[in-house]
Order: sequence, then C-alpha cells, then structure tokens
Amino acid sequence: MKCAGPIEVRDLDESCINIDPIQVGGRLTPEAMKAVIAYGDGYSICDHCRKPFRLDFIKTPPVDVFFRDLADFLHMDVARVVPGARRGFQAVADTYVQKGDPVLITALSHYTEVLAVEGRGGILREIPKTPENTLTADAASEKIEAVIRETGKAPSLLFLDHVDYQYGNLHPVKEITKVAHQYDIPVLVNGAYTVGIMEVDGRDIGADFVVGSGHKSMAAPAPSGVLAATSERAAEVFRTTSVKTDVTSRTFGIKEVEMMGCTLMGVTLVGMMASFPRVRERVKRWDQELAHSSLVVDALKSIEGTRIRSEYPRKHTLTRVDTTGSFDEVAKTHKKRGYFLSSALKARGIAGTIPGATKVWKFNTYGMTRAQAGYVADSLAEIAVENGLRVG
Amino acid sequence: MKCAGPIEVRDLDESCINIDPIQVGGRLTPEAMKAVIAYGDGYSICDHCRKPFRLDFIKTPPVDVFFRDLADFLHMDVARVVPGARRGFQAVADTYVQKGDPVLITALSHYTEVLAVEGRGGILREIPKTPENTLTADAASEKIEAVIRETGKAPSLLFLDHVDYQYGNLHPVKEITKVAHQYDIPVLVNGAYTVGIMEVDGRDIGADFVVGSGHKSMAAPAPSGVLAATSERAAEVFRTTSVKTDVTSRTFGIKEVEMMGCTLMGVTLVGMMASFPRVRERVKRWDQELAHSSLVVDALKSIEGTRIRSEYPRKHTLTRVDTTGSFDEVAKTHKKRGYFLSSALKARGIAGTIPGATKVWKFNTYGMTRAQAGYVADSLAEIAVENGLRVG
Repeated sequence: MKCAGPIEVRDLDESCINIDPIQVGGRLTPEAMKAVIAYGDGYSICDHCRKPFRLDFIKTPPVDVFFRDLADFLHMDVARVVPGARRGFQAVADTYVQKGDPVLITALSHYTEVLAVEGRGGILREIPKTPENTLTADAASEKIEAVIRETGKAPSLLFLDHVDYQYGNLHPVKEITKVAHQYDIPVLVNGAYTVGIMEVDGRDIGADFVVGSGHKSMAAPAPSGVLAATSERAAEVFRTTSVKTDVTSRTFGIKEVEMMGCTLMGVTLVGMMASFPRVRERVKRWDQELAHSSLVVDALKSIEGTRIRSEYPRKHTLTRVDTTGSFDEVAKTHKKRGYFLSSALKARGIAGTIPGATKVWKFNTYGMTRAQAGYVADSLAEIAVENGLRVG
Repeated sequence: MKCAGPIEVRDLDESCINIDPIQVGGRLTPEAMKAVIAYGDGYSICDHCRKPFRLDFIKTPPVDVFFRDLADFLHMDVARVVPGARRGFQAVADTYVQKGDPVLITALSHYTEVLAVEGRGGILREIPKTPENTLTADAASEKIEAVIRETGKAPSLLFLDHVDYQYGNLHPVKEITKVAHQYDIPVLVNGAYTVGIMEVDGRDIGADFVVGSGHKSMAAPAPSGVLAATSERAAEVFRTTSVKTDVTSRTFGIKEVEMMGCTLMGVTLVGMMASFPRVRERVKRWDQELAHSSLVVDALKSIEGTRIRSEYPRKHTLTRVDTTGSFDEVAKTHKKRGYFLSSALKARGIAGTIPGATKVWKFNTYGMTRAQAGYVADSLAEIAVENGLRVG
C-alpha cells in the first residue's frame, strides 16, 4: 500500500519486533504521534512567538518550560534543541576548534564527530581503546601528553561517547573528564545512545557538554537532538550575535550564532516535547531493559561458536555479536546463503538485521517487553538448532 | 483539546484562513500528512539503506530519484536536502568564507545569512537597496568595488534573496549574478520565498547555489530545505571526507563534510518527497496566486490612508502594508486599542496577523482559493467601514 506517490506505507514496527541497532530508542510514543499529526506544518510552533522572537521563549505550546526541563533532566545548566546530535557536535567544534588545533576523539568515536572537526580544519587524534573495546582514563592521559609533545599544545576539545555505537560499551566518562579538565580541555559527552534511555547526570560525569539524539534515543522525529552545557560553556557556545550591518545598521537581537536562530520547529520539536514526560520516566526502568537484553544475549551465547563482542555482562541493550563460527558456517552451505538468517528471523516476525549478514552484526533489544525478548531469544536458538548448530 | 500533556491541538489552518507571512507556503499537502504518519520514526527512511550508506543512494523509498528530481526542478546540477535553508547557507559559508573575508549580503538579507557568515568570522557588507526597496546590478557593482577598495580583495561570497522577506519584492537576480561573476564571486540565491511556489531556473539566473526552504515554501515539515549547486560548485560544497584517523586508521567513505553525513530522515524528508509532485505542479499556477493576492492588496489600497510598502503591482503573495494612516488611527480611540484589527479579523475567521499590530505589517495570500481571497478582501474593507474609515 502506498501512502503517497511511490512511497510505500512503512509498518515495520507495527508488524514486527524490530531489533535494528539504531532505530529502537527513537520510535515515537503515542503522544508524539498525536502531536506530530496536530503540528505537521513547519511553523505550527510559531503562532504565539512574540518578542524577543526566540524558540526558547515560546510559551504556547510551552517550549520555554521544555528547554528548562531538558537541562534539569541532564543535570546541566542550559539546554537547546538541535537538528540531530551531529549539529550539536558542529556547534561545539565551531566554538572551540581553530584551523590546525588538535582535537581528541576516541577509537570508538562516531563519524559525525570526525566531520564536525574536519569542517573546522582541526587535527584529529584518537584515544586508543583497550583490547576489550573500552576507553580508560590512563589512555586519555597518555594521549593528551602525546598530543602536547607532538603539537606543542593541549587539544582544544575532547569528544567522548558515553556508550559507543560500535559495541554499545559504557565508558568511564567521569574518570576521563577528570583527566581532561586537568589540562583545561572541554569535554563533549556524546549521549546519542544514552540520553533518553538511561539516566545521564552531566554534572556528575563532569561533562562540559552533553549531546543527545532525539531520533536515536528520545522517541522524537528526525532530525532532532539536544545540546546541553554548563553555564560557563553555555555563554560560549550559545553566544548571541554581535553583528551590526554597515548600510542598514541592523542588529539581530538575541539570536544565537551557533544555533543559527531557531533550530527545530513543528513536528521535530513538538514530537520531542510530547514524548518527554514518558522519556523522563522510562530512563528509570533501565534495569528492566538490561534484563530483557540478557535473555537475547544469553541465547546467542548458548549457540556454539557464537561470541559476544561487546563487554559482558551487558550494560547496554545495543550488542555486537560475532556469529562467524555459527550462523556464518551455516551460510556456507545453506541454499539462501547468508540471507538465511535475516530470512528466518523475518519469517518469525523479527526485523532490523542487515540481510545477508552472518558474521559480525549488531542488534538492540530496547523497548521490548519481556515476552518479546523471550520470543527473540527462543527464535534465535530455534534457528540455530534447525540449521544443525549445537545449543546449550 | 490537548493532543499530549500541556500541548493544545493546533487547528489554525483547519479553522481559519491563515494569512501569516511565513507559514502559508509550508503547509503540508494531504500526501505529506499521510507520509508523515507512516514515517514518524526518525530512522524510518533507513530500513533499506545499504552500501555506500548515504541518503541520496536509498532506493526504497526512492530518495535517490527525489534528489535528482530536485536538482532538475531547480535547473541545477546537484541537490541535497538540509535541515532548513539556513543550514544550506551555513554549508556554503563554511566552504568559501575564511576569517576576515569580506562577504556580501544585501540591505534586505535574512538574519540567518548574517549568522552563517558571523559563524565563520567573515566581514559582512551590505548592498544598499533603492528607495523603492529593490536591489540593482549597479548597486551590487558599486559595492563590490567599494569592498575591494576597503579590503584589497573581492568578496568571497554573495548572498542574494530572490524575493526578500521584508517586502516580498522580486529582485533582478540574473543581472546581479552577472556582475558578481565578473569578479569570480560565487552567488548563493536564497529562494526561501520562491522555491516551491514560483518557478525558479537556477541556471537562467546564474546561481552558483540555490537554497530553498521546505517548511517555508515546499509544503514540508520543519526543519527542511534544499541546497542545489552547479556541478563545479557541488564538487566544493559537497566534498567528501578525507580524514584517516591516527590510531584505528578509519576512513569514512563518501560522507560529505558540510552535510555532516545524512541530513534529513523520517518525517522531514518523506514529507518533502510526498509533497514534491504537487509542489512541482503548483509553481505553474503562480499567476493565479498573484491574481488572488491582488484582490486583497487592492482592497487594502482602497482604504483611505493605507499604503502598500511592497512594490506594486505585486509580483509575490507576501506583502508589506502600512496602515498607520488608517487602522492605526482607529486603534487610538478603539476600546480594544491596537488589538481591534486582529480581533476583528479573527472574528471573521482570518488568522495569522500579529495581535496588536496596526502600523506596518505583512500578510501572505499564498494558497487561498479565489473565494477565500475575495472574502479576506471584503472583510478588510468591512472592518475599515465599521470603524469609520473611508473606502473606495
């Protein structure tokens, strides 16, 4: 069925259990869906925008309250919404990185952090990861010293993924920010996989900036995200325009340069707002999410030849699994080749894996009920047994 | 009625004739509304994203075709979608403006162009407008020469609003780009008020870049927009990442630095796509839109003491009107003061004016039926007569 022109109606989350590694934390709540329908038009949020004409001053709907709630939620001083986490990275890179400045990322950093720094002409340096795919304060400290030896100056910024996208591992952010601050390096904590699904206390972990993704983990439409800062850093990254034009002598009020004025409107902002009360509650049930995740992870571990590549026990619902010694062996002789796995899952109503992938792949159990997690676990074991793999 | 928490259902466009100057070209089509409901989740567009993992390669839904159609529609070589026109300005400023570079805007430029240049540390210079609030090639030429005398170099970029947001005046873009190109200055044509409602031929007007706004004029959710370029300029602004990281030796494929990877997903992109067939057709009916606009403009002109501040006859549906000598005189003694006008309009089912504004204000008739335009025209005349103003 088409919804418009050649565009098929999408019903993946209505018809299947979705285990896509990046999708599950972003699915809209019923409240967001209703709000999206009422606020489809772009400027729908702007009907009651009055002086000083800035998003965070709008009272109807209560955008002003939402911005303050967002900052409180992250235990930071000031929050702004942005068109995706990457635009938060960009705003911070624009503020702190000059051409030729060394900037620290990590061996597990997301590519959008790289692009944010590349756009400013910064020189990227990675903090190495351990063989267990985690980051350590010692590695951070050594790398900072190495950068100073190499370039003569401390990195102007450090991007640190709270939970990384590759393994879903939880890193010792608090210890690393402590090291960075000894060198006065501001730290941006990328919470794309944490903000909105786990509790994040920016103050406790020593973040100068916390960035979250609306469409990845806050049940909001895309592109959306949050950039929160300490009050000290907010004055820098949310600085207002200081231009006065030469002919008309125009000035532009309290528009924030890095935000480019208003950032999100209509569906993206209202969707974030509508989901927020539920998001604020759901982070408290993280243990339950991890318990559901364990069911699936343990089922995979029980399949002979399968290895969990992420840290174990799991501290996040995104997991990287290596089935080279199990499902990939099956693929070698199966008539569907590597497609047998996604196909067998799909036949059982489980979607979100890359068709053909049987070696190293990722999945995310976030948002499943216990029954759904049990079903996915049983299905994986069943598929293994049906294809002659030993389980148990 | 609330749709979620404290958020009131918005039904302004269902219950009123909306004449808001910035809203009317962005209202969703029925097709976009349906698509938005099916694609509410952020990564909904990504189910079939395969190597090389970039938005413009996705075939289901046909994003790849849409990108090519967008470029054709604007008579440009390459098009990308962006989170609002301003993010198009930013990408181009990032590419061409170094700290201290002079950059030309005009006396009628939108503030987001200013912020894009301020973010890069460029020095803004304005091309003056005529007393009739239009721009001329002569003024552009003189200003370029003045900048060269002042700074020793030609501006590195020129931002030119096709139709400006202040008066809705149509400027001689073709003549001005010709002048700029004599100095090798790339020209970004800001089509926020033209792309999607009027025919725009980027090649004919000599644009190096054409930027459009999805939520302002392309019946798409916010934030959305288009950045189109000639093939020569596309190679610059859409350059791909060249980073190789120092520890993990990672590279990042064909991700485009200024786009920061993928730009729009879910509702914003699918909304643009779903509206596009209708948008492509509606630009051909611009004459009809102007005829409807004339009904309202002429009604206002017929009210003694009222002056149309925009060029006349109108070439755009956005018009700036000065009612200081008419409605503002009424406001001085009316018991509702300045609120009488918006209140009287609202009572007649006409919304989108700023409450209390009776001096200089703007309205936009885009998208009205002839009957609606006639009704708005009659209502304005009626309100004038009821308040003792002479009409005719």
